[in-house]
Amino acid sequence: MLIRRASEMAGNPMTMDGVKDVEMRMLVGRADGAPTFSMRHFTVAPGGHTPHHQHNYEHEIMILEGAGEAQYGEAVHPVKAGDVLFIEPDVMHQFRNTSNDEFKFICLVPKQHDCGCDGMQPTPGS
Amino acid sequence: MLIRRASEMAGNPMTMDGVKDVEMRMLVGRADGAPTFSMRHFTVAPGGHTPHHQHNYEHEIMILEGAGEAQYGEAVHPVKAGDVLFIEPDVMHQFRNTSNDEFKFICLVPKQHDCGCDGMQPTPGS
Repeated sequence: MLIRRASEMAGNPMTMDGVKDVEMRMLVGRADGAPTFSMRHFTVAPGGHTPHHQHNYEHEIMILEGAGEAQYGEAVHPVKAGDVLFIEPDVMHQFRNTSNDEFKFICLVPKQHDCGCDGMQPTPGS
Repeated sequence: MLIRRASEMAGNPMTMDGVKDVEMRMLVGRADGAPTFSMRHFTVAPGGHTPHHQHNYEHEIMILEGAGEAQYGEAVHPVKAGDVLFIEPDVMHQFRNTSNDEFKFICLVPKQHDCGCDGMQPTPGS
């Protein structure tokens, strides 16, 4: 059985446009044989943020440590450890660390999504 | 945006055969419009356990609080808060609380799975 701990894994800096000071760790992904969805771990440094973007697949998120804010459409929600967020497809969103401590969360995505070209394609970062 | 905290939700006792002293909270599920997978929260009381069973879909799990053991096939693995487990399809598995404190984890499942009858069917508890 695959058992992993984010605290024992090396992080990979996210290099997408619009990202600032975010590391990713793949907890369970397509390379592990995940059939349907992937679990990723993100660490956002103080002042850092994920991209402000949208896509046609969902996120399911649990905040693990720290506090920050979630932009969702026009709204901004304060979020903290223990909060679970459902980001629906096709809504602009971003996660920002507005605190002085690291902000950590897991974010799950479907392994594939509709490519808009009569088929499915692999989800980035799955 | 849907924001939930397990600590602010009422738990539902699991009534499946082979379950002892387990409560479930649906964090993000099909009733919320989850397109692909569902996030459930489980609390296992001291001495309690989930069913010893298998099914043709996967689990992705993060242990949130406490410690226990995971039966996976013939092996028994000690697990504790922070561990992430990938339970592959078609492997017998069970989670047992061998401690004196509550054992809490999230467990994600695909929303649907192959029914073995030339189609897909809803996953129980999704």
